[in-house]
Amino acid sequence: MRVEIWADIACPWCYIGKARFEKGLAAFAHRDEVEIVHRSFELDPQAPAAGDTPVLDMLAGKYGVSREQAEAMEGRVAEAAAGEGLGYRSDRMHGNTFDLHRLLHLAKERGVQDELLGALYRANFAEARPLGDAEVLTAVAVAAGLDADEVRRVLADGDAYAEAVRADEREAAELGARGVPFFVIDRRYGISGGQPAEVFRQALEQAREEQVREERAREEQAAEAPVGEGDGCGDGVCVPGAGG
Amino acid sequence: MRVEIWADIACPWCYIGKARFEKGLAAFAHRDEVEIVHRSFELDPQAPAAGDTPVLDMLAGKYGVSREQAEAMEGRVAEAAAGEGLGYRSDRMHGNTFDLHRLLHLAKERGVQDELLGALYRANFAEARPLGDAEVLTAVAVAAGLDADEVRRVLADGDAYAEAVRADEREAAELGARGVPFFVIDRRYGISGGQPAEVFRQALEQAREEQVREERAREEQAAEAPVGEGDGCGDGVCVPGAGG
Repeated sequence: MRVEIWADIACPWCYIGKARFEKGLAAFAHRDEVEIVHRSFELDPQAPAAGDTPVLDMLAGKYGVSREQAEAMEGRVAEAAAGEGLGYRSDRMHGNTFDLHRLLHLAKERGVQDELLGALYRANFAEARPLGDAEVLTAVAVAAGLDADEVRRVLADGDAYAEAVRADEREAAELGARGVPFFVIDRRYGISGGQPAEVFRQALEQAREEQVREERAREEQAAEAPVGEGDGCGDGVCVPGAGG
Repeated sequence: MRVEIWADIACPWCYIGKARFEKGLAAFAHRDEVEIVHRSFELDPQAPAAGDTPVLDMLAGKYGVSREQAEAMEGRVAEAAAGEGLGYRSDRMHGNTFDLHRLLHLAKERGVQDELLGALYRANFAEARPLGDAEVLTAVAVAAGLDADEVRRVLADGDAYAEAVRADEREAAELGARGVPFFVIDRRYGISGGQPAEVFRQALEQAREEQVREERAREEQAAEAPVGEGDGCGDGVCVPGAGG
């Protein structure tokens, strides 16, 4: 089974949702069969790269509320985070996440995508570290298992993995995602939001049951089908390599 | 609703399946809501571009059967084609279809993709015209509504739309398509093979019913949800533009 998770590092519910999903996954009997792929999504592609605006100022300015009201908004999310044992600081900065997503694609190739994603969330939400600062970002990426020179090369070359980020974002749009986090199981079930762990566990159960049912049906069908004569086009389907 | 159809012009069951799907679609009450997207798939990417091997020779060579046995194999497919009122000639040529798929992507941009696909199938299967011949291919494409100069430019530039073809093929692999035709409704239901028209109609009905049910559930949920305070992260989901 394959779970794709569209998320943004600047998204509080993605941070909380990741912890909840992992709890749901841990309670799923067939968790060893689950492959996880993180996919890119930018909530605010126009955000400045420097990331030097405090989140509270951004919220206050964007919604025309007082700083106190912005703090109250953040406070509710902080409670949800605390409920998952996650640190949450409202004095973090708001900035562009495109480079972070590019690094996550490098990390995917290096087999440390989940590690880097967890590290970026922690650095942003629990530690309020300024990820818009290339040296801070590099340090976080290296601690997650990436090579420092490689990270610097990718950060210096804005095109590196840019297309991979955009392809993820196009797919999110094609799949009808209107926000994140957005979880897709086997391209069959879509789940929006940082749902309770039990919702994730049940969705995984249901997807697996359906998969098993379908495999059984396919096997029965295959057993009943007449033996083809190898023209690669038995049963109404033409398979690769046959060409006829 | 959106139906994506992965197919190859060299695939007899794609040709037959297209007619059956269209019959099923015509019997579907909400056919006007259905958007169709043709997607590229090559059964035999290694086939020579020239397309100067008779299909019967290809089949006989590939499966180590006599020409008579190859004719018998083709005869069964021809019967199925005749059942849909489609011409089917076994004296057609076997060749590479990459350029044909590139032209189908051009045709998509020009709004004549379905016309070109129908014309290519007819030229290949009903008329046994050699589509590996650039002049023949251009004539077919122009008759389907494309501009002759534009077609020649695309054929001369092997990179034109090549990435679009490959992206379709990658998606087919990601979606688990093992052969074609492969029909995907709203990225939710997958149907393999040139199934009877009634199977397609029923699948369309089912997908629509589910869509209506989900929309209703979403509306009810939206009506019940408390008015958010505009932090872009209500209900566990963060939506674009909020960034907080």
